Parts: sequence; C-alpha cells; structure tokens
Amino acid sequence: MAESTNSVADLPELRPSSYADQVYGHVLQDILKGGFPPGSRLPSESELCDRFGVSRPVIRDALARLRLDGLVEARRGSGTYVLTTPSRSLPDLANLTDISRFLRYQELRLCVEGNAAALAAERRTDKALAEIVEAHEQFSSQVARGLFLPESDRRFHLSIADATGNEFFSLALEGPDVSLSGFMNVSLSLTRSGSPARARKVIGEHADIVEAIRNKDPVWARVAMESHILQARRRMTNGALDP
Amino acid sequence: MAESTNSVADLPELRPSSYADQVYGHVLQDILKGGFPPGSRLPSESELCDRFGVSRPVIRDALARLRLDGLVEARRGSGTYVLTTPSRSLPDLANLTDISRFLRYQELRLCVEGNAAALAAERRTDKALAEIVEAHEQFSSQVARGLFLPESDRRFHLSIADATGNEFFSLALEGPDVSLSGFMNVSLSLTRSGSPARARKVIGEHADIVEAIRNKDPVWARVAMESHILQARRRMTNGALDP
Amino acid sequence: MAESTNSVADLPELRPSSYADQVYGHVLQDILKGGFPPGSRLPSESELCDRFGVSRPVIRDALARLRLDGLVEARRGSGTYVLTTPSRSLPDLANLTDISRFLRYQELRLCVEGNAAALAAERRTDKALAEIVEAHEQFSSQVARGLFLPESDRRFHLSIADATGNEFFSLALEGPDVSLSGFMNVSLSLTRSGSPARARKVIGEHADIVEAIRNKDPVWARVAMESHILQARRRMTNGALDP
Amino acid sequence: MAESTNSVADLPELRPSSYADQVYGHVLQDILKGGFPPGSRLPSESELCDRFGVSRPVIRDALARLRLDGLVEARRGSGTYVLTTPSRSLPDLANLTDISRFLRYQELRLCVEGNAAALAAERRTDKALAEIVEAHEQFSSQVARGLFLPESDRRFHLSIADATGNEFFSLALEGPDVSLSGFMNVSLSLTRSGSPARARKVIGEHADIVEAIRNKDPVWARVAMESHILQARRRMTNGALDP
Repeated sequence: MAESTNSVADLPELRPSSYADQVYGHVLQDILKGGFPPGSRLPSESELCDRFGVSRPVIRDALARLRLDGLVEARRGSGTYVLTTPSRSLPDLANLTDISRFLRYQELRLCVEGNAAALAAERRTDKALAEIVEAHEQFSSQVARGLFLPESDRRFHLSIADATGNEFFSLALEGPDVSLSGFMNVSLSLTRSGSPARARKVIGEHADIVEAIRNKDPVWARVAMESHILQARRRMTNGALDP
Repeated sequence: MAESTNSVADLPELRPSSYADQVYGHVLQDILKGGFPPGSRLPSESELCDRFGVSRPVIRDALARLRLDGLVEARRGSGTYVLTTPSRSLPDLANLTDISRFLRYQELRLCVEGNAAALAAERRTDKALAEIVEAHEQFSSQVARGLFLPESDRRFHLSIADATGNEFFSLALEGPDVSLSGFMNVSLSLTRSGSPARARKVIGEHADIVEAIRNKDPVWARVAMESHILQARRRMTNGALDP
Repeated sequence: MAESTNSVADLPELRPSSYADQVYGHVLQDILKGGFPPGSRLPSESELCDRFGVSRPVIRDALARLRLDGLVEARRGSGTYVLTTPSRSLPDLANLTDISRFLRYQELRLCVEGNAAALAAERRTDKALAEIVEAHEQFSSQVARGLFLPESDRRFHLSIADATGNEFFSLALEGPDVSLSGFMNVSLSLTRSGSPARARKVIGEHADIVEAIRNKDPVWARVAMESHILQARRRMTNGALDP
Repeated sequence: MAESTNSVADLPELRPSSYADQVYGHVLQDILKGGFPPGSRLPSESELCDRFGVSRPVIRDALARLRLDGLVEARRGSGTYVLTTPSRSLPDLANLTDISRFLRYQELRLCVEGNAAALAAERRTDKALAEIVEAHEQFSSQVARGLFLPESDRRFHLSIADATGNEFFSLALEGPDVSLSGFMNVSLSLTRSGSPARARKVIGEHADIVEAIRNKDPVWARVAMESHILQARRRMTNGALDP
C-alpha cells in the first residue's frame, strides 16, 4: 500500500448489506447530521417501521446493533435514547455499514489481541522483541512525518501476535475477506484528520504496549493493549476530535 | 462428514514441519513409549543436539513448545523434567506435529470461545438459543448412540459464536486452512476411545454452557466454556483415559 | 469449631436488615414454598408495594437483588419472571438475608480467589504446595467420613491465598465481621444434606485446583477456582440436590 | 484527615519486618542510589548471603519479591538483572518495606477494583453515579489547587466499590489494619512532588473511569480502572517523574 488513502474500498464485503444494516446506516446518518443530539429520544419502533417500510424485527435488529455500538441506550418503558454523536468526519471516510462492521471487529480484537499481548510478554524472544520495536519505530517515525500507513500499523500488531509463538493468533485476526489494514484505514483516517495531540496519543499507547512486552509483564501488556483498542473505538464514536 | 473417522487427514497443513516440530515429535514419542515417566529428567540440551544432529536453538524451540504444552517443566539449574504422560492412544490417532498444533489451537479457542460464550449469554435471542439447544441435543443423542461426529461438535460451538451477533467470532475460529471439525476429530477420537464416563463428562460440560447461556449469565458462560476447553486439552495430555 | 453445625449463627451481621432485604426474604420464601414455580410471573411492582406496604424504590431494590442473585429476570414491558427454585432445604439452614449475603460474598470470592489461584500457580514454593495438599487431604478424608467442617474448607482456600506470597489476598477474604468459615457453613450444609455424589463433586473440584497449582498452570488454576465458586453458588440456587 | 502529609506514618504495620524485607529494602536502596543501573547484574546469591549474613532462603525470598515488584529479572543460568530504577524521591517519602507492601496491595486492588468498576457500570443507579461524579469533582478541584488529599482519592474509589450494590467490595479493600488512604498517601506524595502534567494525567484517568461507568460500559470501566492502577504502580517504580 503506497500510502494512506481516504477510501475504505479495501474493507471486506462479508455479506450483502441487510435491511437492518441499511436502517442502522440511516439512523446513524441522522445522528451524525445533528438530527438527534445526545440525550434525545429516537422515534418509536412502530414509527421507524412506517418510515422505512420494514417489519418490526428488522427495526429491532438495527436498534440492537446501535446499542451494541454504544451509540444509543434503551430505557425501560420509555424508548431509545442517543448517547453520543460519532465523529462528524466519519461519513466522509467510510460508508455507514463499514462503521458498524469496524466496531464489531474491534470487539474480536479486544480479546484476541489482549491475550496475544499477555502471551507475547511471557514468551517473547529477543528476536521477536526486536521485530516489535522495529515495527513500532517505523510507524512512529512515519506518523511524525504526517504519514498514517495502515500497513505499518498492521505490521506492529501482527509482530505482537507472532511473538506469542502461536500462529493461530495472527490467523484469527485476518482471513481471506478480513484484513487488519482495511480496518486500520478507517481508524487512521480519523487520526490523520485529528489534531497532532491525537497522533501523539496513538503513538504513546503503542509505546506502553512495547514497554510492557519488553518488561515481560503480561498483566500490563494485556491492559495496555485492551486500553489501546478501546481508545481507538472511542476515537471513532465520540464527537470531539481532541485528543 | 459421514461419520467419525480414525484419521486426522483433514487437519490443516499450515506450514512445513520445522526441525523443532520434528524434535518435539520424537521427544513426545519417547515420553509416550514410557522412556521418560513423569518426574524423570530429559537429556541435556547438548545431548539432544548430538542425538538429533541439530543446533541448540532448534532444541530450545522444541523444549519451549513441550513446556508450553504442559508436558515438561524446566527446573532452574537442573534441567527439564517430564510432568505428564499424554494419552497412549494418541500416536495411533494423530501424527505428532498435529498434537502440538492442536494444543496451540486450543489456546486461541480459550480466549475466542470464552468471550463468545459470555457475549452470547448477554445478547442471545430466543432464536439463537433454540439453535444452540438443537445442536446440543443432536450431538448428545449421537454420542448416546456411540457416534462422535466432529461436524456436530463444530455446529454446537459455532452456534454459540453466532449467538454473539458478531460474525467475526466464527471467522476467527475457522479459516481457509483451519477448520474446527479437523481439530475436533483429534479430540473426539480420544473421547470415543475412552470410557462411557468420559463421553458423559463431555456432554455434561456442553450442558453447563447451554444452561449458562439460557440463564443469560455471562460470567458463568465464560467460565463453563473455558473449563470445557481446558478439560479437552487435559484429556489429550493426561495418561489416564478415565474419565 | 468442633464439627459442622446446622445453624449459621456465626454468619456476620454486617448491617441491620433493610426493608429491601426483608422484601427479598419474603419473595424468596414464596418461591421456595412453590408459590412461584420457574417461568411464572411475580406480582407487579405496584401490587408488591401494596402487599408489603413499602415504597416503590424499596420494591425495586429487592427485585434488583433477586435479579443479581439469578433467581428472577426482568422481561421488557412484561414483568419479572422466576428463573429457578433455590434448594428447598435452604430455609431450614439459613435465614433468608443470609442467603442474599452469601451470594454477594461469592461474587467477591470469584475475583479474589480466581486471581489468587492463578498467582499461586505461578509463584508457589514447594512448601506452599505442601500446605495446600495437606489441607486438601484433610478436608477430603473428613468428607469421606461424613464430616463437613467449615474450618477445614476455609483452611484449604486460605492456603491457596497464602501461596500467592501476597498477604492482602487472605486479608481481602476475611475481616472483623466476615469469616470464610461462616459462609462455608451455609454451603457445606447443603453439601452435607445432599447426596454422596454431590460431596464427591466438591472434592473433585478441589482436586482440579490442586492439580493446576501443582502443574504451575495459572490459566487452568484460575478457571478451576472460578468454576468451583460458581458451582457452589449454583448448588445453593438450584432446586435439585443431585449432584 | 486535615490535608496531605509527607509521612506515611499511617501505613499499616501488618507484621514485623522480616529478614527478607530488610534485604529487599537494602537492595532497593542500592538501586535507588544508582549503584545498580538498569541492565546491571546484582551480586550472586552467595555474595548476598555473605554481605547480609543471612541464609540462602532469605536471599531468595528477597530476590523473588524484587522480581514480583518488576524491579529485577532472573536470567537463566546467568543471574539477576536490574530492570528499572524506581523514582528517586521515594526514599524521602516512604520507608522501604512500605514500598514493597504498597506494590503488593496494588496487586489486590487490580482485581478487586477492576471487577468493581465493571459491576458498577452494569448496575449503577443514578444516585450512585451522582456520588461518583461528586467525589471525582471534589478531588479534581482540590488537585487543581495543589491539594492532594488521600481521603478524597479514597472517597472516589470507594464510591465506585459501593456502586456495585455489593458491600463486600469495599470491605475487601479496607480492614482494621489496611486503609486505602494510607496507601494513597504514598502514591499521592509522588504525584504532588511530580509535574503538573503528572497530576493532570491522574485526573484524566479518573475521568475515563467515570465516563465508562456513566456510559454503562463494563468492559471499558474494567480496563480504565486496571490501567489507572497499573499506571500508579508504574509512577512509583519508574525513575522519571514526568508525566
């Protein structure tokens, strides 16, 4: 990959966009446009059925996904309320079903990469550590020059998965239709469009992970990796870009 | 898959068997044949170098993998000692690098399926629960008739991954060269060759997982799944077949 | 403690029984007497307010605690439904607020003892292991003779907490008003009043924990301990006594 | 407590300082004074026996504790090497056995408070959230005025433990001889003596925890709390005071 791009054209098409995904996308777009600020109530299930001309289970699926993604919450006997406004630059970067898929992928990464980081801290050889450090330094120096290359971010994360000595961790993160760098493109687009402070924060999170693995501290390595992945998710779904 | 088989011919060939894997296999075979009972000391690194005609890093890799697999332990300043004798029926069932690969795959499953079970307990719809229950009942009734079908075991585990509502969990468990049923064949071969008590224990572990997901108890679901996967690993590496 | 007793007189009185605890106790008693079988719906919040002459927040607190304890579940827009019937011998063994307190205490134990078991597996000296094994064998041989002594069960669990080398783990489990053996009395009463199969199951769970710590396997030690504590909770809240 | 103090006189005296603790303290002091920079090798076990006039098991205990505290590591067949230099201002703030005890206490807090934060996010009432927010704002505004009051920090952490609805979490954190504020004094002394950036970092970590609990996100709440506790430990054992 030559350098970072604005499109997410290489995001996997895992399955045809379902009705629920389309409803998800439309509601998300309404939230993004400011039609539903944080704290406001979404239309009722039957109003949404009417508006989109779909059945109630489809609406329920879409609302469930919005809840899973932390964008809305259900309040007992009252309805569904907006919790946060995702970053407004999102719709320029990614189509809306990609965002939902990105958030689900982060959920898998949280457990696979959190465990991989802990195992890497326990088992890493000096050679494996050297590869992690080199990947970290390459990515950092590129970011310092304003380059946000998904392939370099991917290389850093896979070097940690490989340091476990268990090839199944990297296999779990990528497949024929799933590539880390595809998803990282979404995330890095936000970082690039954000402030220098945001870029420094990403690099600082990577540095924490490297330090924990260098120090052979599996508890800290797991928490540092989980924290990094959750912060990436949060950078996507919170409105403010700093930091 | 028509029915259970004795071969593991469908186990994935992820990469050519390395020197370290071959050494691993030979040492494991010696342990299996009773050459090194639990508590005995393995030859030193330099003796193993001479015996296999390979360099010291290769021997270290092989010993590290035996330690990871819980078969031996290093004692500071003293050497490497055998901890357990794997099931003696293993070499008839699987070639030896398959066993090492099986054990590494279980390590991935522990985190991916443990998390999937917890999320399934939180989010499962009635429909998803019905599919889990049906897969469980099919597998149980087959086992009661003496049939141990990897495909049925796989279906049970994937029905839980799917109940998360996040397609990436099942994608993480299988890939173009990795299939759950391939690995389950190894595990089920042992169960089949074991006592009826062992088969009942496997079914009981599945029933615990189903009950936890039915009760929407994510903590219990995670622990029940992790316990099941660790017990499967233990059934492979402990000598006794009961239960 | 001379030997096991039927009372739980040594259970700590942490705070005066609140209104919510009293309502909890009455509803639990109704469930125990068979007034509300699994699947049945509890009276509405306002009916419960009228019946007990208390305000709605008190009722909500009591229902929340029943939900936390896994005895009932809320179904959206429909009400509160009974999930399980706790063991019918419970009311003879313990007063009802004790049960609620027991269940909350198990929640703390799950995290403190799960972690302690993992750390014990990593760090245990031969001396610490010998103490764990001795406590395990004492308890097992007593149970084989029909004796269920809370003090012996407590000694087993504290020997694991001490094997961490960190005195704060045992301090977290007991305090001036909280004693492990007080709570174990509740749990052991159920085991004693149950079948021999139930007693064997408890001993088998202890044996798994000992084996994992002996093998220096922190992952297995944690899961074995968590599984044991969850099974104890389940033995308390499920109706069937076997096993 | 009127206001923050420089002494840790209120740290609990749990047991008489053992020989191993004294050796631990002396070696730590040597490291602090720069006698053993990161990467250097400590004297051998027998040299340490001679120097301190104690038996080998005492030396081993002390080295084991230094390893547990992340200050040194053992390298197979080579010796014990220094990993980090703790903050140089430590010896003015705390006597050396206090530091070791602080680090062991953080290990307990990691699991108890990590779990408490997750449960608080799941169960918190609006009233419980209001108490967390108030404690957070009080502590933040005090820190902004240069006041680092252990009692305010303690109140923040206990408000989260209380939001679980399970009184055993706060009981596990404190006892007749253990008080959160005693330990926080050590930690806050370092923060106070550090840069304004360090104080802002502590407040930012608290804010992350509050946000996760407000958003009812148990996964994020756990990771944010664990990250905060690990960062506190790291602020104690790393040499640099910024940030």
